[in-house]
Amino acid sequence: MSNKIPVAVLASTGSVGQRMISLLDGHPWFEVVEVTASERSEGKTYQEACHWFLSKPMPDYVKNMKLLPTQASALQKAKIVFSALPADIAKEIEPDFAKAGMFLSSNASAYRKDPLVPLLVPEINPDHLDLVELQHKNYGWTGGIITNPNCTTTGFVIPLHAIDQKYHVKQLFAFSMQALSGAGIPGVPSLDIIDNVIPYIGGEEEKLEFEPIKIMGTMQPDSVKYHPMQISAHTNRVAVVDAHTICCTIATEEKPSVEELIDTIENYQVPDVTKTLPSCPKQAIIYHEEPNRPQPRLDRDLENGMATSIGRIRKDTILDYRFVSVSHNTIRGAAGGSILNGELIARRFFGM
Amino acid sequence: MSNKIPVAVLASTGSVGQRMISLLDGHPWFEVVEVTASERSEGKTYQEACHWFLSKPMPDYVKNMKLLPTQASALQKAKIVFSALPADIAKEIEPDFAKAGMFLSSNASAYRKDPLVPLLVPEINPDHLDLVELQHKNYGWTGGIITNPNCTTTGFVIPLHAIDQKYHVKQLFAFSMQALSGAGIPGVPSLDIIDNVIPYIGGEEEKLEFEPIKIMGTMQPDSVKYHPMQISAHTNRVAVVDAHTICCTIATEEKPSVEELIDTIENYQVPDVTKTLPSCPKQAIIYHEEPNRPQPRLDRDLENGMATSIGRIRKDTILDYRFVSVSHNTIRGAAGGSILNGELIARRFFGM
Amino acid sequence: MSNKIPVAVLASTGSVGQRMISLLDGHPWFEVVEVTASERSEGKTYQEACHWFLSKPMPDYVKNMKLLPTQASALQKAKIVFSALPADIAKEIEPDFAKAGMFLSSNASAYRKDPLVPLLVPEINPDHLDLVELQHKNYGWTGGIITNPNCTTTGFVIPLHAIDQKYHVKQLFAFSMQALSGAGIPGVPSLDIIDNVIPYIGGEEEKLEFEPIKIMGTMQPDSVKYHPMQISAHTNRVAVVDAHTICCTIATEEKPSVEELIDTIENYQVPDVTKTLPSCPKQAIIYHEEPNRPQPRLDRDLENGMATSIGRIRKDTILDYRFVSVSHNTIRGAAGGSILNGELIARRFFGM
Amino acid sequence: MSNKIPVAVLASTGSVGQRMISLLDGHPWFEVVEVTASERSEGKTYQEACHWFLSKPMPDYVKNMKLLPTQASALQKAKIVFSALPADIAKEIEPDFAKAGMFLSSNASAYRKDPLVPLLVPEINPDHLDLVELQHKNYGWTGGIITNPNCTTTGFVIPLHAIDQKYHVKQLFAFSMQALSGAGIPGVPSLDIIDNVIPYIGGEEEKLEFEPIKIMGTMQPDSVKYHPMQISAHTNRVAVVDAHTICCTIATEEKPSVEELIDTIENYQVPDVTKTLPSCPKQAIIYHEEPNRPQPRLDRDLENGMATSIGRIRKDTILDYRFVSVSHNTIRGAAGGSILNGELIARRFFGM
Repeated sequence: MSNKIPVAVLASTGSVGQRMISLLDGHPWFEVVEVTASERSEGKTYQEACHWFLSKPMPDYVKNMKLLPTQASALQKAKIVFSALPADIAKEIEPDFAKAGMFLSSNASAYRKDPLVPLLVPEINPDHLDLVELQHKNYGWTGGIITNPNCTTTGFVIPLHAIDQKYHVKQLFAFSMQALSGAGIPGVPSLDIIDNVIPYIGGEEEKLEFEPIKIMGTMQPDSVKYHPMQISAHTNRVAVVDAHTICCTIATEEKPSVEELIDTIENYQVPDVTKTLPSCPKQAIIYHEEPNRPQPRLDRDLENGMATSIGRIRKDTILDYRFVSVSHNTIRGAAGGSILNGELIARRFFGM
Repeated sequence: MSNKIPVAVLASTGSVGQRMISLLDGHPWFEVVEVTASERSEGKTYQEACHWFLSKPMPDYVKNMKLLPTQASALQKAKIVFSALPADIAKEIEPDFAKAGMFLSSNASAYRKDPLVPLLVPEINPDHLDLVELQHKNYGWTGGIITNPNCTTTGFVIPLHAIDQKYHVKQLFAFSMQALSGAGIPGVPSLDIIDNVIPYIGGEEEKLEFEPIKIMGTMQPDSVKYHPMQISAHTNRVAVVDAHTICCTIATEEKPSVEELIDTIENYQVPDVTKTLPSCPKQAIIYHEEPNRPQPRLDRDLENGMATSIGRIRKDTILDYRFVSVSHNTIRGAAGGSILNGELIARRFFGM
Repeated sequence: MSNKIPVAVLASTGSVGQRMISLLDGHPWFEVVEVTASERSEGKTYQEACHWFLSKPMPDYVKNMKLLPTQASALQKAKIVFSALPADIAKEIEPDFAKAGMFLSSNASAYRKDPLVPLLVPEINPDHLDLVELQHKNYGWTGGIITNPNCTTTGFVIPLHAIDQKYHVKQLFAFSMQALSGAGIPGVPSLDIIDNVIPYIGGEEEKLEFEPIKIMGTMQPDSVKYHPMQISAHTNRVAVVDAHTICCTIATEEKPSVEELIDTIENYQVPDVTKTLPSCPKQAIIYHEEPNRPQPRLDRDLENGMATSIGRIRKDTILDYRFVSVSHNTIRGAAGGSILNGELIARRFFGM
Repeated sequence: MSNKIPVAVLASTGSVGQRMISLLDGHPWFEVVEVTASERSEGKTYQEACHWFLSKPMPDYVKNMKLLPTQASALQKAKIVFSALPADIAKEIEPDFAKAGMFLSSNASAYRKDPLVPLLVPEINPDHLDLVELQHKNYGWTGGIITNPNCTTTGFVIPLHAIDQKYHVKQLFAFSMQALSGAGIPGVPSLDIIDNVIPYIGGEEEKLEFEPIKIMGTMQPDSVKYHPMQISAHTNRVAVVDAHTICCTIATEEKPSVEELIDTIENYQVPDVTKTLPSCPKQAIIYHEEPNRPQPRLDRDLENGMATSIGRIRKDTILDYRFVSVSHNTIRGAAGGSILNGELIARRFFGM
C-alpha cells in the first residue's frame, strides 16, 4: 500500500484538469484517488467522459477511475484537492472543501482577492502560507484554500520579484501576447485568430494589475501588506498554442547597470523551503542572451515547463529597464503551479 | 496621348514594389512609364522577372514593360519616382535621382533622418514639403527626396497626432505586434513563426522612438523643430499576413475625458491640401466601439487599406490613456503611403 | 420606386447569411426587402443582432432592417428567397416558402437529394431548372426549391464538367483540404487546428461522392438521369481561412494529351443563358501555369471569388490525369452560388 | 573509457543534423566523437556555429566539440557515420566514407535508387542489409552506404507493408499534407503558408511513387526485386510544424473485412532482429479509433516520435480500402530513421 498523500482533482476532464492529471502521473508524493467532473459525466469512467487533447497520452492510472460529482461531500479520501474549476463554480463550492478539512490548491480566480487566501508562488512568497492559520482562526476552516495566480501574472512575476528584492520596482508597464490554451476548450474560434490578433481578453488586465502587488506583498501578523508598485497592462491573444509572452518596462528605486540586473536574475535563488519540492525547477529563471529570445515555441518546455524564460534586458528610454518574459501558461501558469503549491502545502501541513 | 504625370517605380518586382505597381493601376494622375529591378532581371519583361504574390492579379499595363537598371541615368521620362529600394542601395543612389531633377517618393529608411528630407504623412505635416526648397538651396538638387515613415510608426502616428494637436502628448509607450509582410520576401521562415512569436525586430524600436518626433515636429524657416515627446517601444513579430497592431499608452498635458478623446479622434480633419488627393482616405481614423477591435484581419482593408483603425481608448492606471491601433503595413505603411506622398508632390510641384 | 425584384435572406446573420447580405449590396436585379433570424434576435435591427465578421463593412441598407422570424408567413414582399438555414431547420420549413409561391434558392443540404429539386450550377446545368415545373405538377407548389451544392463539390465540379463534356469522366479520386469558414461560426476551435490538420469532416465525403453525379446528370422529361461516374473522397480540414483546395485524379473514356485537356478547360464556355447573369464570372475556370498553383490565399478572390482556379494538370501513373482545384468556399461555394442561382431563377421565372 | 561505438554526424548543424545530435544524447550504443559542418563553420565549436532551433536544449556533450570539414579524410575515429547532407553533396562525397571503411547511415536521397544500396526500414526489410555485402564485392568498399527513405514515404510505408504482407497491395493513391520542417531551414517563407496551402513539392511525388516498391521488394541473391504495386501521389505543404499526414486509398489482392484489416495492423510484429534495437518503437503502428484521428499535433510524439499512427480505415467506393496515416517527419522520417538504421548496422557488423 502506498504511503503517498491521497489527492483529488476537481473538474479533471477540462483543459487545466487534464494537465493536472498528466503532471500527477508518477508523482513522488501524491496519489490521485478521486477525480470529479460536471454532472453530465458523473458515473462514467474518466476514459469514457474525457475528450483528451494533450499530445502526451492519457495516463493509465486514471483511465478507469469513476468520475465523482464535484462536491465536498462526494470525496472520501483526498487530503489535498487540486481545483481546475471555473471561477463562478469555484466561488460557490470551494469553501465547502476547506470546511470539510481538505486543503484546496486552486487554479480558479474566485478567492485570489480574499485577504486571507494566499496567492501563492513558492519561488516568491512561501511564507504567505501563514494565512492558512488565519483561515482556521477567522473562518473556522480545518483545511484551507490556496490559490495560484493567473497564468499571465505567473509569466513575469518571478523575474519581477528577483529584481524587486534587490532594486525595488516602482512601476510596471506589461504587454502580453497570450496563447490560445489560456482560453480553455473550445476557447477561441479558429476563424477569429488565424492571420489575426485579438487585442482584448475580458477581465485579464485587471488581474495583471492586482495580482503581483499581493504576491510580492509582505506577510504581516494579520494580513499581507500589498506591494506599493503601480502596474498598467495591455493583454492580447495571438495564434500560439501554449506559452504567454510578456513585454515589460519598469522603473526601479535603485539603478543598477544592465549587467548587474542580468546577474541578479541569473543568480536568483528560490527560498530554501521551495528548492527541494519535487516540481520546483532547478533553475527558476533562465536568461537568454540571443537578441530574439525567449520565444514561446522554443522556450516553453524548459525545466518541464516550470521555468520562466527572460531575455532582451536593456535600458528603457523613459523608465529604467525593459525585458521580455515567456512562460508555459497551462503548466507553470496553471496546473504545474497548482501542484507546486500542493507540494508546499504537503511540506507544511503533512510533514513531507 | 495621356496628360498624366509620367512616373517610375524603383525595385518594382519586390514586395513593396508590387504593391506600388498594383495601386498605380488606373491611377487618375499618374502613368507608370518606367520600371526598374536589380541587374539580374534587367532586359526581361516585368512579367518574366516578377514572382507576383498579391492576390489581386498583376495589372495588364505592366506585364510587357521592359525592366530597366536601377540608375538615375536609365530613366528618360519619369518626373516622379517611387522608390521601394532596400535602405543600403537607397543610401547610395537616391540622391542621383534628385540631382537629375526627379522627385523621389521613397519608402526606404535611408534619408529619413536627414534634416532636410521631409518624413511626410500628408494627413499630418504637408507643410514639411517646404524642406524640398531647402534641398534645392543647400544640396543643389533640382528634384528632391521625400520619405514616408516606417510602417509601424505609420500605424499609430495619425491618431497620436490627432490627440497631440489638442491635448499635447508628453510620453508614449508603444508595443507592436507586426505582420509578416513587413519583413519582405522571403522574409520570416515559417518554422520561426507558426505557433510562435518573435519578440525582436532589428532596428525597429529605434525607428519608432525617433520618427514620430520628426513627423509631428514644427516646420520652421530652416528646419523642422522636433516634437518634445518621449517614446519607448517594444516590437514583436506575430503570425499575421498584413497589418500591424500597436498598443499605446500615453501621458498628455491636458486631461480630457475618454469621451472627449474619442470625439477628438472621430472628428479629426486632415489638412485641406490633403483632403482631395486621390489616395487620401475619406475617413483617416476610424474609431471602433467594440471592446475587441480593431483587429488586423478584420480592419486592415478599410478605406482601401489607407485608414488607421483605433479602439479600446480607456484611462490608464499609471499614465493617462491607453488605446490600440491597427493599420495596413504594406498599403498605408509603405506603398500606399509613398503614393499619397507622390500625390502631394504632384499638387505642389506639378500643379495638380 | 425601385423596379428590382424584392428578395429576402433567411438566417441572415450567420456566416453564409452575412456573405449573402454583403453580395446583394448594390445588386442590379435584386433588392433585399426582408431579413430573418432565429427567435432570439426577432424584433431587433440587423445591426443590433448581428456579430458582423467580414472584413468588408456591413452594408448601410441592412443596418436598420428589422429581423423577422424565419417563417414563410412572416414574409410579405419577397418573391425570391435566399436560404442560409442549417440543414435540419431547412428540412422542416423550406417547403412552406415554395407552397406560398416563393422561389427559394437554398444553400442548405436538406433537399439536395430530392429527385425533383435541382442541384443547380448555372455554368453546368441550367436546364435542370425544368425540375421546378415538376415541383409545381407533383408537389403542388407555386414557387419552388432550388439548391446549390456543398462548397467542396462546387470547388471542382466545373472543371470536371468541362473535361467530362468532351472526354467522359469515368472515375474520380478527390482529396480535399478545406477552409475553416466552411464550418461556420464558431466552428473549429483554434486549439484544434493551429499547427495541425483534422483528417475528417462529418458527412462531407458522402456529399462529394453523390453531388457531382446529380449536377452532371442529364435532364430528362420526368427526372434527372444521374451521371455514371464513380467517386471516392478523402476530406480534411486545414488552417486556411477561406477557399477549399481539392486534388483530383481521374479516369476518362477518351485520352487526350495534357495540352488538349488544358485547352479544353481554358476554352470552356458557360451556357449562353448563364453568361450574362450579373454574378457569372467572365472566366469560369482559370488555368494557372505555375507548378505551385492554384493556392487558396492567392487565388480565391479571382473574379470576385466566383472563378474556379485549376492547375498542375498532368498525367497520372495509375489512371489518366491529375489536377488541383481551388475555389472560394463561402462565395462561389455558398452565398455567391445561391445568388447566381437566384439570378437564373429571375431570368426564367421573372423575365430578367 | 566508453566501450560504445564511435560515431560521427555529417552536416550536424542543419535541421536534420540537430535532430540527430539530440537523439544521440545518452544513446546506449553510440558515442558521438566527430561532427562536421560546411567550410564556413570549420574550426568553430558546435555551440558557436549552430543556430539551435529545437525546443529540447542543445545537449552538453556537443557544445564544445570542434566542427570538422565534411570529408572522409577528416574523420579519424568514427566507425558509423550519420549523414544529414543535402542530396547534391551526398552524391559527390558519400562513397568516400564507404571506401574508407565507414558505414554511412544516410538520410540523403542521393543513393536511394542505387540497386546495391539498401533503402532500409528496419520494421520492414532488415534483410536488405545483405546488399552491403554486394557493395563490398562489386564496389570494393570496406564500409557501406545505407539510406532511409523520404520522410513522406516513411509516413505510410509501415502500415502499407503490414497490410501487404497478408493481403497484397496492388494499387495505392497517396495524398499528403506535409509539415514545414520537411523543407529544412530556412525552408518555406511564412508569407507563403499562413492562411494557405501549397499544392506542390518539387520531386516529392516521384519519390513516393518509387520508394515503397524498393522498400517492400524481395531480397534476392544479387539484388532486390521490386514490389509490383502501382502508386500515384499528390503532395502538398500545409501550415504544420512537424509530422506529415497522408490519406491513402488502396486496392488489394485479398479482400478482408475492415475489422480483419484493423486487426492485422494492430497486431503487426516487427522482425525479431529489429524488435530489440534501442530506438525501435514498442508499438510500431498505433491504430486510433476516434473518427478524427490521427492528427499531426496530437499524435506525432507517440513512442518518442518513432511510431506510425493510423486511423479511419474504411471501405472505399472505387478501390478496396481507405485510411489516414501520420508520422513525425524529422524523427521517424529522418534523424530517428537514420539512427534506427545505424543500430541495425551495429547489430549486424559490430556485434551489438
